Amino acid sequence: MQKFMNEDFLLKTETAKHLFHDYAAKLPIFDYHCHINPKEIWENKSYENITQVWLYGDHYKWRIMRAVGIEEKYITGDSTDYEKFVAYAKALSYAIGNPLYHWSHLELKNYFGIEETLSEKTAPIIWEKANAALKSLPCRKLIEMSNVALIGTTDDPIDTLEYHKLIREEGAMKTKVVPSFRPDKAVDPARADFAEYMGKLGEVCGMTIQTVADLKCALANRIDFFHENGSRVSDHALDYVPFVAGTEAEVNTILAKALLSQTITTTERDMFRTHIIKFLAAEYNKRNWVQQWHLASIRDNNKRLYKNLGVDVGNDAIMDVHLAKNLAALMNACAEDDQLPKTILYSLNPNDNYTLMTVGGCFQGGGIPGKIQLGSAW
Amino acid sequence: MQKFMNEDFLLKTETAKHLFHDYAAKLPIFDYHCHINPKEIWENKSYENITQVWLYGDHYKWRIMRAVGIEEKYITGDSTDYEKFVAYAKALSYAIGNPLYHWSHLELKNYFGIEETLSEKTAPIIWEKANAALKSLPCRKLIEMSNVALIGTTDDPIDTLEYHKLIREEGAMKTKVVPSFRPDKAVDPARADFAEYMGKLGEVCGMTIQTVADLKCALANRIDFFHENGSRVSDHALDYVPFVAGTEAEVNTILAKALLSQTITTTERDMFRTHIIKFLAAEYNKRNWVQQWHLASIRDNNKRLYKNLGVDVGNDAIMDVHLAKNLAALMNACAEDDQLPKTILYSLNPNDNYTLMTVGGCFQGGGIPGKIQLGSAW
Amino acid sequence: MQKFMNEDFLLKTETAKHLFHDYAAKLPIFDYHCHINPKEIWENKSYENITQVWLYGDHYKWRIMRAVGIEEKYITGDSTDYEKFVAYAKALSYAIGNPLYHWSHLELKNYFGIEETLSEKTAPIIWEKANAALKSLPCRKLIEMSNVALIGTTDDPIDTLEYHKLIREEGAMKTKVVPSFRPDKAVDPARADFAEYMGKLGEVCGMTIQTVADLKCALANRIDFFHENGSRVSDHALDYVPFVAGTEAEVNTILAKALLSQTITTTERDMFRTHIIKFLAAEYNKRNWVQQWHLASIRDNNKRLYKNLGVDVGNDAIMDVHLAKNLAALMNACAEDDQLPKTILYSLNPNDNYTLMTVGGCFQGGGIPGKIQLGSAW
Repeated sequence: MQKFMNEDFLLKTETAKHLFHDYAAKLPIFDYHCHINPKEIWENKSYENITQVWLYGDHYKWRIMRAVGIEEKYITGDSTDYEKFVAYAKALSYAIGNPLYHWSHLELKNYFGIEETLSEKTAPIIWEKANAALKSLPCRKLIEMSNVALIGTTDDPIDTLEYHKLIREEGAMKTKVVPSFRPDKAVDPARADFAEYMGKLGEVCGMTIQTVADLKCALANRIDFFHENGSRVSDHALDYVPFVAGTEAEVNTILAKALLSQTITTTERDMFRTHIIKFLAAEYNKRNWVQQWHLASIRDNNKRLYKNLGVDVGNDAIMDVHLAKNLAALMNACAEDDQLPKTILYSLNPNDNYTLMTVGGCFQGGGIPGKIQLGSAW
Repeated sequence: MQKFMNEDFLLKTETAKHLFHDYAAKLPIFDYHCHINPKEIWENKSYENITQVWLYGDHYKWRIMRAVGIEEKYITGDSTDYEKFVAYAKALSYAIGNPLYHWSHLELKNYFGIEETLSEKTAPIIWEKANAALKSLPCRKLIEMSNVALIGTTDDPIDTLEYHKLIREEGAMKTKVVPSFRPDKAVDPARADFAEYMGKLGEVCGMTIQTVADLKCALANRIDFFHENGSRVSDHALDYVPFVAGTEAEVNTILAKALLSQTITTTERDMFRTHIIKFLAAEYNKRNWVQQWHLASIRDNNKRLYKNLGVDVGNDAIMDVHLAKNLAALMNACAEDDQLPKTILYSLNPNDNYTLMTVGGCFQGGGIPGKIQLGSAW
Repeated sequence: MQKFMNEDFLLKTETAKHLFHDYAAKLPIFDYHCHINPKEIWENKSYENITQVWLYGDHYKWRIMRAVGIEEKYITGDSTDYEKFVAYAKALSYAIGNPLYHWSHLELKNYFGIEETLSEKTAPIIWEKANAALKSLPCRKLIEMSNVALIGTTDDPIDTLEYHKLIREEGAMKTKVVPSFRPDKAVDPARADFAEYMGKLGEVCGMTIQTVADLKCALANRIDFFHENGSRVSDHALDYVPFVAGTEAEVNTILAKALLSQTITTTERDMFRTHIIKFLAAEYNKRNWVQQWHLASIRDNNKRLYKNLGVDVGNDAIMDVHLAKNLAALMNACAEDDQLPKTILYSLNPNDNYTLMTVGGCFQGGGIPGKIQLGSAW
């Protein structure tokens, strides 16, 4: 048997080894869809121990700990960092074959120089070794070791982008750190915080948002601001693809209701979303941006967990929903005016990949290589 | 070429051989979802010939016979047992690669010591050999040879469980034979026989079921009775996952209609099912039972076949239906009161596995290892 | 590394090589679902260059050219045939692993005797070689080289089938060339050209279609005509499976509306389609025909492309839609009167295959081997 995780890990043929070692391995990473906090990059945050970097925010790891029977105290509760690390080590022993098993061991090997297999038994030694190594592994060093050419963080339209500016002005990093435009809160009139958010968005733009024209003006304003700060990508999360055609007058009525926090029907919500997504697509296209549409997730399913811990805590799942009809209609609505930008489509549900690829394939063209791409949601 | 079905059948790597021969092969079977009739176990039923044990009730085999062009006379009709066996042997020749081909030959090898390949040509010899071997292979011997530690049969709440008691009191079997609680008839107010069934269920409990409170009382009573008889598992078959919230008053109104055999709407049916399934889940949870939810089958599709032969005759298929939203809602309804028991989720449709696994993954926790599991529906 | 596309291409085991070389390779092709124009076969059309035979009509190739960034001018526009070939050669270089890469090279090898890999660099030489070879490769020669025993073309019920007759009367081809009955235009009352089509269909049959009885009479008449011309197969394209039961009187009302080009609701459309499909199935069954039901495509998605180029231009995609319930109901409606013919089911969406196979499996029987089959939509 080969050594676990040797240099040919996952490479089963000579062709695979050749392609990986002689080509892929040398290429830099363009991480255009990243969730690192730009403040941590600016501050070049240091980590006292491996629990801080591995377990404070990684809810994928939390899920596997819950599945294996670890009590919440050792996951998100008030136990010590060491106890949490040992609990994770124990959980991981049951996860051979799971990508977490590979990720964790690849990280131990490549960043910490640790080749032992992590288990409850090896946890104490690995804790010491990893923490010692972490002393010389602040945030920027980890990025550098990963050969990352570009990081696109995920940012709200109202963000000041101050840390992006500081990083850029400092000019010390080889990695380009740029924002991505994530306007989910501005697109969904059924969100409880929509009216409040419109207030904030108006404030940032020095205006009051009362009409769809105002909202479009504000969004275009912020896209320009993001563009000046290096952004070339947007990112939309959609539970499903909305498509309900409507006039600007109709959408104005929906906006008026939403600004008063009145109940928005599903049809109204989808008409509003269709209109604004189409508008944004045209704005992205003008500036030669790439848009990302993320589809088919169902979030915050366990309401007790949600009440206790909030969002992004390992409480999301794969949605099953039909996409073809509305996706084709929404892409066509953009393309009819020749204002469909380059687009990356993702679904959390692997069943959707054939549909996304083939619907997207109808909108290739105009001499643009790979205008429509299928992204991996995992 | 290797010998067909040698000791390394299906084991393609050294790791696979090691894991199977050195670990899996020695483990006993816990058959918690079994359809053997407990009466046959108690009586230690003997079989005169291989057709009785293979073809009298196995509608998987019937399907392949129909597909290959065998006339119904030789499947479920009035031909002789020998003719039926020969007909199956002929059909099986066309099924190389089908699991039935593997199952049938594994059974011939492991229980009858027959290593020939079954075909129309070898059928006469195998008929003689198998029938000779069957003389010393009554029901209990077959179970013993399979190294079965536990059999969970499938039983209606009104069942007397008399054979389970007799087997237990006799104390002669190494295999534990316990009932499973399958309350499908009590959960679905749209069934034609619902009112009649409520009468029977009330009778078994010495009461009349007129209200939801009565129904709950009767079901809890029967769960206790099953518990006393060793049951620790329930089993629900659901075409799709219902979720319509309703008050007990509303559900009482639906029950009243159903007791009068009035037409029940889909919304009423789903509200009733939601309410009762949630109640049952809490009851299971109190007793530390495991519940099974079976999803996505569509049954009795060919109505001529159904009229001629009834249910479970090779006339069911894989349903396509969206599960995520209602599954998350129904599990959450149970979990909000912290009364979600250990649960096994199955879908007949392999497309659903990612959804089931990830929705289920949101409800792991409480320090219970593997609280939510994905079962194989095949 | 093995030579690209050697005689064992795609054959990874000894069993695979044995099965292919010793059995499959020698078998003739029964191409019962073919889109070659019978006029081209009758005229034994010659091709001046490889662009004419490869790129004039193959919209699969157009899609990959668009995806890679080739401008429409070089795909369907006014550039020269040579420029188009070079453009395709360039596009194909990016498609290693795509079936087009395999098809194209298999064709170069098997029909043109060219073993070089096609790329922008080799395009000029291959252009010369392929065009030289084409001089002795008219349409019939290509069919002959493919060892095709039967070609079933795709024909509208109103077709005169004149070329089929001419080919048959000439008696020169070893390959049987027969029509397939594709009545899509007669089945869908919501088509913009439905009323006009009814006029044409009536004319061909020497009658006026005013009632469902008339329509059935006309369709039966044309089925007979196709039967006389060698047809034994029909082909229905359905975006989804309709099933709405209705009386003939109700369907008459829908037909009357459609003949006046009035708007047809979805329910009316599905009731009409259910009724006519069931009628046709019975007619096919009487004549021992095989029917084909094609499911789950979504067509002409990019409306600009559709306006510029029309149908079948690389603008279709995979639909996601639930099939099980209506498919079971529609097959059962045919089977209840014992008038379900042999049927081939296809879905463009690979997710549907388990559902199609298992629903279809409920309608096997009557001693007919392989009565219901799953076809490959690709």
